[in-house]
Amino acid sequence: MQVTAAEPGLHDNTADIDRLQQALKMKLGDNRPLTVAYECMTLVARAFREAGYTGYALLNNLDTAWVVVGFTAKKPSVIVGMALDLGTTHLEATLLNLLDGEVLAEGNLENAQIAFGADILSRIHHATTKRRQQKKLPFDFQDPGLDELQQVIVSTINELAETLAVRADIETGSILALAVSGNTTMAHLFLGLDPFHICREPYIPLFNRSPTLNSNQLNLRIHPMAPVWMMPSVGSYFGGDLISGILASGMAQSSKTRMLIDVGTNAEVVLGNSDWLIACAGAAGPALEGGVARMGMRAGPGAIEYVAIHPENYLIDIRTIGDVDPVGICGSGLIDLVAALYLTRMIDIRGKYRDPATEKDPARAAFMKEHLLERDDGFCFVVTDNSTKGTKDEVVLEQIDLDAMIRSKAAMYAILTTLINQVGLDFSDLEEITVAGAFGRHINPQHAMTLGMLPDLPLTVYRAIGNSSLRGAEKVLLDETARNDCEKIVSSITYLELNVNQEFMIRFSGARFIPHTDPSLFPSVPFFKTDGI
Amino acid sequence: MQVTAAEPGLHDNTADIDRLQQALKMKLGDNRPLTVAYECMTLVARAFREAGYTGYALLNNLDTAWVVVGFTAKKPSVIVGMALDLGTTHLEATLLNLLDGEVLAEGNLENAQIAFGADILSRIHHATTKRRQQKKLPFDFQDPGLDELQQVIVSTINELAETLAVRADIETGSILALAVSGNTTMAHLFLGLDPFHICREPYIPLFNRSPTLNSNQLNLRIHPMAPVWMMPSVGSYFGGDLISGILASGMAQSSKTRMLIDVGTNAEVVLGNSDWLIACAGAAGPALEGGVARMGMRAGPGAIEYVAIHPENYLIDIRTIGDVDPVGICGSGLIDLVAALYLTRMIDIRGKYRDPATEKDPARAAFMKEHLLERDDGFCFVVTDNSTKGTKDEVVLEQIDLDAMIRSKAAMYAILTTLINQVGLDFSDLEEITVAGAFGRHINPQHAMTLGMLPDLPLTVYRAIGNSSLRGAEKVLLDETARNDCEKIVSSITYLELNVNQEFMIRFSGARFIPHTDPSLFPSVPFFKTDGI
Repeated sequence: MQVTAAEPGLHDNTADIDRLQQALKMKLGDNRPLTVAYECMTLVARAFREAGYTGYALLNNLDTAWVVVGFTAKKPSVIVGMALDLGTTHLEATLLNLLDGEVLAEGNLENAQIAFGADILSRIHHATTKRRQQKKLPFDFQDPGLDELQQVIVSTINELAETLAVRADIETGSILALAVSGNTTMAHLFLGLDPFHICREPYIPLFNRSPTLNSNQLNLRIHPMAPVWMMPSVGSYFGGDLISGILASGMAQSSKTRMLIDVGTNAEVVLGNSDWLIACAGAAGPALEGGVARMGMRAGPGAIEYVAIHPENYLIDIRTIGDVDPVGICGSGLIDLVAALYLTRMIDIRGKYRDPATEKDPARAAFMKEHLLERDDGFCFVVTDNSTKGTKDEVVLEQIDLDAMIRSKAAMYAILTTLINQVGLDFSDLEEITVAGAFGRHINPQHAMTLGMLPDLPLTVYRAIGNSSLRGAEKVLLDETARNDCEKIVSSITYLELNVNQEFMIRFSGARFIPHTDPSLFPSVPFFKTDGI
Repeated sequence: MQVTAAEPGLHDNTADIDRLQQALKMKLGDNRPLTVAYECMTLVARAFREAGYTGYALLNNLDTAWVVVGFTAKKPSVIVGMALDLGTTHLEATLLNLLDGEVLAEGNLENAQIAFGADILSRIHHATTKRRQQKKLPFDFQDPGLDELQQVIVSTINELAETLAVRADIETGSILALAVSGNTTMAHLFLGLDPFHICREPYIPLFNRSPTLNSNQLNLRIHPMAPVWMMPSVGSYFGGDLISGILASGMAQSSKTRMLIDVGTNAEVVLGNSDWLIACAGAAGPALEGGVARMGMRAGPGAIEYVAIHPENYLIDIRTIGDVDPVGICGSGLIDLVAALYLTRMIDIRGKYRDPATEKDPARAAFMKEHLLERDDGFCFVVTDNSTKGTKDEVVLEQIDLDAMIRSKAAMYAILTTLINQVGLDFSDLEEITVAGAFGRHINPQHAMTLGMLPDLPLTVYRAIGNSSLRGAEKVLLDETARNDCEKIVSSITYLELNVNQEFMIRFSGARFIPHTDPSLFPSVPFFKTDGI
């Protein structure tokens, strides 16, 4: 903000800092308190004085207060902010010029906490190691495991900030604001706050809303007084990442009802419009995220992201990320594959491999013989044996992986139906189904519908928006009203706890078939009743 | 503040911290933002949960916001706050129970910064050593001398807090608030902020109003989130200590006009009432504070604090602080002594020793011969040669000390008259003259009037209020409205700069006689025109 103050003299002995504050208050014209951050007072006063009491003040807008953190004689052309998606497995961030929204750099890094546990539960386990071992602990006890996880995530963020700063050709110290979006557990681990009760009934986190901290309170190596805005969360399993997603999707600003689906470690689903929002979360993701299926992997180089099997000549077409030799299969590839296995009748409606011996169609029987191998633990489907490359690194889908996949898709559909039923609507009432995350970016909704994972709707209803958690954090940095919007979203959300929901369990059972026990729900999907049951 | 919240359950998954905040906001009923301090979140959440979501929250009232810093199941009987007078030579502090105002402990400690300079100017000199030596310094330069002085004062405060905590039988960590009153330079040195311009025309400090800091930002070893309230100052030579004094005196609440005189390293004077305040400061103190007169010393054990010379038999009566052997003479003793020397005509109206050889009264001539010794640099008066104690440690007053004393008293009277003249009033219009500080506690206003240091008024007009700087800090701790009163005081004060005031210089010249060149101003003081001039 540009500001000019009268020069001091013997008859105007207002102190430098007070002079700046008075001039700024006059200019801002609101009655929010305004202070100069203690840590910046020396530099601000010196710069203000040397600039001849005129120039540009750098202010943190903390909603309820203004804090001056810098002063320059000349108008700055770049003010850098960092948006961060604090994912359980990966951190993804962008550096933005807050003056015009330009993206200065972007990048991601693996969450180094993975060394202490791949998923949220094992991280909470590690963060509460000591407290679980000992009954009596001092009142001000802080678990060393928690400290360790906090230090690791802070280091990872510092490393990512450093990388992006190099790419943008700036100093990390000139990153003047940070907006962080992450699930509730990641938020607790980042702030070093006890996550013990997050995974214990009745699943009450220590906090949902964090006060705005300064980066130096967290040992972040960006500007020491950079405000750290944490996206608020709604509950233990409904974190700031999804609030960020809702913000990015714009659903809370639309008068027509939409649905947002974000599949990460959990499937998180929101339904609503500008008047109301209802949300729930459930474990529908694992089979899709890699790590569950033996050949499953995250979307990364070598992951099969697309599979098709020709319905007549049974030729298999696969595509890998980075166009390199396949080493595994990611969520979208898995959905494509299982949908193709169903449509080519390799599997029955229960998701079980059919016995090639019972197949009467000669072409299909030949294909089955070639690709369906019977091993100790049952049949498995060889997607590729990499024989063309002269290696033996085959990518296969075992029955156990198929079963996990069916459970995941059933959970997903059960979540969606439970939620829409809760408000007395039908899927056909939806203006849009927004699919967020890597899942949303890569999957083919048609194949997900074939499996009965997503409702059978015109493809135009589905829209992918990428990493909505990061997009929301960017919005908060660039748009001062977005923080208020987050508060509105949080306060208008009704949270539906599925872990104890009877209806969900019933709907889950009904959805454990392809596409469903009630095929009338999926009119566009062929139903092969004769196979299985 | 007592607070009870509903217990959480599966259908009320509000986080612990958010639950407490909601309950407190409801209870407080104002719309100031309320947060739980990040550093206290773990402990507060744990205590709140373990207390069954009911108990007593400890809140910092930061005027523009509430910050929760603790939670207890049972109602606390003591909440400790510390009031601190950050003097240039001494630190004085009290521990108070904020619930009922009870004084839990009090004490003082020498300001260890004295090792780096006895007065403010030499401290500023030390704090700017490096920056004065080098022309070109990096923009973010912080002078090591300033850091040194900050560390020293923080250590002294920590030591004093420790001492008082032991006396009150509490932990220093349970000191939950600190109010600090000190002159502008001490405030800068305490916060480690550059005092360079304080002593350079046009005497603009870096800050007058400090934001409320947390004790951990200053490395104070009290409760880490204890708010540190700094009394605001008005200018380089008019600090928070005097704002504190004005607050403690109650003059800004009185409809009748009063005058407040605080003599420390500087003489600081305020005139006014609830409608207006005018203030000025000048160097009138040094001769009174010890360190200038060769035998001068601060009021402490062995300091002669009272002197009388019988007008007929010339017997000298002295009293020392602590009733021990005299080792020097403090301000009040000096005023008594010089007044007595004048009344017994040992000195003339210019404050010069009279030559015993010219004295005609035999009794006086004998006394003069015994006590007025002629040395290399002129006469000196022997107050006591300690001969009764068998030692040779005499306490004497040399002509050079007398001259300094006359300058000081002239400066004081010139300050007072310049100020009262500025508003078109006369001393007789004053309801009260409040005299603060050790000076006010010990001096005899009658003797100060004899010297022409204080105006010739009925003794009932004078009131001593002791360490008003400390009293004001206590008031700020105990009374939430006192901080607003301070702001009102600061904004209603007109500051009169004497360093460039012509009228002051003229009045100063006129006041360099005992009692004055115009003896009609002091009708109650005998005037010995024949002596001198």
